Amino acid sequence: MIQPRTLKGFRDYLPQAMLPREALMQTAREVYRSYGFAPIDTPALEYLEILAGKGSDETDKQLYKFTDAGGREVGMRFDLTVPLARFSAQYAQELGLPFKRYHIAPVWRGENTQRGRYREFIQCDFDTIGTESVASDIETALVIHDLLTQIGFGGQFTLQVNHRGVLNGVLESLGLLDQSTHVLRAIDKLAKIGPEKVAAEMQSTAGATAEQADKVLAFAALSGTNDQVLEQLAPMVEGSEVGQAGLARLTEVLAGISAAGVDPARVKLDVSIARGLDYYTGMIYETTLAQLPDIGSVASGGRYDNLAQMFTKQRLPGIGASLGLDRLLSAMEELGLLPEVRTPAEVFVPLFNAELLGPLLKLAADLRAAGLKVELYGEPKKLGKQLQYADKRGHRVAVIAGPDEIAAGQCQVKNLSDGSSETVAQSEAAAKITKILSEANAGE
Amino acid sequence: MIQPRTLKGFRDYLPQAMLPREALMQTAREVYRSYGFAPIDTPALEYLEILAGKGSDETDKQLYKFTDAGGREVGMRFDLTVPLARFSAQYAQELGLPFKRYHIAPVWRGENTQRGRYREFIQCDFDTIGTESVASDIETALVIHDLLTQIGFGGQFTLQVNHRGVLNGVLESLGLLDQSTHVLRAIDKLAKIGPEKVAAEMQSTAGATAEQADKVLAFAALSGTNDQVLEQLAPMVEGSEVGQAGLARLTEVLAGISAAGVDPARVKLDVSIARGLDYYTGMIYETTLAQLPDIGSVASGGRYDNLAQMFTKQRLPGIGASLGLDRLLSAMEELGLLPEVRTPAEVFVPLFNAELLGPLLKLAADLRAAGLKVELYGEPKKLGKQLQYADKRGHRVAVIAGPDEIAAGQCQVKNLSDGSSETVAQSEAAAKITKILSEANAGE
Repeated sequence: MIQPRTLKGFRDYLPQAMLPREALMQTAREVYRSYGFAPIDTPALEYLEILAGKGSDETDKQLYKFTDAGGREVGMRFDLTVPLARFSAQYAQELGLPFKRYHIAPVWRGENTQRGRYREFIQCDFDTIGTESVASDIETALVIHDLLTQIGFGGQFTLQVNHRGVLNGVLESLGLLDQSTHVLRAIDKLAKIGPEKVAAEMQSTAGATAEQADKVLAFAALSGTNDQVLEQLAPMVEGSEVGQAGLARLTEVLAGISAAGVDPARVKLDVSIARGLDYYTGMIYETTLAQLPDIGSVASGGRYDNLAQMFTKQRLPGIGASLGLDRLLSAMEELGLLPEVRTPAEVFVPLFNAELLGPLLKLAADLRAAGLKVELYGEPKKLGKQLQYADKRGHRVAVIAGPDEIAAGQCQVKNLSDGSSETVAQSEAAAKITKILSEANAGE
Repeated sequence: MIQPRTLKGFRDYLPQAMLPREALMQTAREVYRSYGFAPIDTPALEYLEILAGKGSDETDKQLYKFTDAGGREVGMRFDLTVPLARFSAQYAQELGLPFKRYHIAPVWRGENTQRGRYREFIQCDFDTIGTESVASDIETALVIHDLLTQIGFGGQFTLQVNHRGVLNGVLESLGLLDQSTHVLRAIDKLAKIGPEKVAAEMQSTAGATAEQADKVLAFAALSGTNDQVLEQLAPMVEGSEVGQAGLARLTEVLAGISAAGVDPARVKLDVSIARGLDYYTGMIYETTLAQLPDIGSVASGGRYDNLAQMFTKQRLPGIGASLGLDRLLSAMEELGLLPEVRTPAEVFVPLFNAELLGPLLKLAADLRAAGLKVELYGEPKKLGKQLQYADKRGHRVAVIAGPDEIAAGQCQVKNLSDGSSETVAQSEAAAKITKILSEANAGE
């Protein structure tokens, strides 16, 4: 006998956890598709040379790698960006540019489990490759906006936007451009460690003077409406070409988001976000939930200069972002937005007795044909036992029919949340159930 | 520079291949859910002891296994059944029985690539655990029926059913029960190698006499309506308890499928199917496409006695089946059922010129709000170039608006299949497009 156990650092998803996870992935697919992003998939395994050295030192250390039975050095993908780079280089001609793709798939990292992280998780990315258009910058913001809205956070999130060129322009004006990586890493910690420690870090790691550090902090503390911040930025990037171009792009992107009809309250120009990575070169996006600002960004991304330079000479600029599926699910759980349900089926049909199996199979089939999801209990146990099962699973309506009801072409439709019940013609059951479900949804 | 290439034995899915694959998985999810099957997920990696020796000698040989950074012996799952066994043993108490789950996820096998197989493929399984009810046998058939119908093969497939007890009962009557594995393996090749070679194989591997082999073949050749075959089987299983019980169950299952409203022409009792595995103990299912019978079964499964005996003392009988995703996609491609489309978006909006970006973003957003999927081209290239892009991608309608149309609140709706076009108010564009799309779908 072997002990059934899950590999250390990994987890199983039971129905209660998997149902909202699937719903979220489906919403992401629908939103991505509504903008013309097309799905792709790539293998879990890649030649090791494709993956090694392509992320950070950390991802290199965390890489699952081994020699396959054919003697090939292989690795399990640690993100979807390196496979996208390989894919784009390999098929650029065939795909045509610009190429808009989404990819929702698991990735693997040998994370330190003491930090509460798992070694397998789903990434949920969308990217537009092969264009530097302002339209693709705007669209990336619109997709994030629609994602959060469709998921159910309409009016309850802020999309923070920034442009790396503006940051670099300000640093250039201050003579700190060569130290930008250190400065940006420090700024990125502003919310966590506060301005004094950030100033100290800039002085120690970037060699900034106290005055330079103060000016950087003054810049990072800019506030007001988006228009006010844009106005205050103009003099700060004066004399820096990259800063002026960044500011112009940022202005265009904000105007475009607005023109598309997005509520201006959802979008905030925040010069302090830098996304810590050297990778991004243009627009940057983060997304904060109004009720849970401390959990960090739930959808983030930005523009990069050249996706696939390790695989092709063709320059492939692009922009993309990704939905933080696990973080968002935790947030929804914390906010009580996830129903305690272990079944996808709203309707439960108990098996009154074994002789009625035929007519009840037909009744269940008719309800399914009307678009309902229906679980028929398979064993003729006592009705109370069967309804206990339904209660544990979280079915919302029971359709009960004994010999008399079947003979009369009727059934009892029982609302399992309030216990009320009504006997109706079987032909009217679907309409009655649909009404109960829609009233319950409206009342939530 | 590293050569961008896909690991040997693996493949990438470009949008044209991935779009129908995603559609098929979504249909499977919807059908599974409509019967109350709930989604679960398990890790790609398991402790090696969970996987090793749990499939066939072949799956053992093909197993991807390695030692992880923590010194654990691990393997990549080679199917979804062993993880289900581990999962069911681990959570049986928490889940409650019967437990109905579906699992759609990749598995890995180091297959010999010369046979045209890939080393990573999606399995698409559903199972009902913890019950021996006839209802679960019937429901398994209904799910397969609904799957094929929803995918678009309504009226064009045959669900073949059989019961292992009937086979064993006949063998018992013939005194061949101890050799049943060899006999069943031989019968399973009937369609491929013909009766003579099957008879020879039974004599050589099962030690059957020529007379016994003839009787087995006569049994395997039984034909007629389901009722006629049931009638001919009765005397053949006389004196075998297991045979009579099997026949009774088979009769009940066929009656239940019928009672649920399934067209009798879709279901065929075929005593020759044995599914070559020792694993199945009760009902067996296979599914053949009318237009492509030679590609083999596209959805198969059956009942098993004890899912998780290597992991728990609790007996867990069950029944399940799985959709052959790749085989079905090849079939659909061969039958011309897959559209040559590289985008999920029906609607294409060219960017007439850079100044119109704002109004066109709004127009695209309005069309999306009406439920359409819309790709806005991001660069103000020549209209002809942009429409070439749309043509390559397979968008079906273009919505074109220049400065005059925008000023008048209008746009041109162009049907890209027949080239016809009409200028309408922007507020009426969505309705016009929906009409074009539904007419095209009706005409297909």
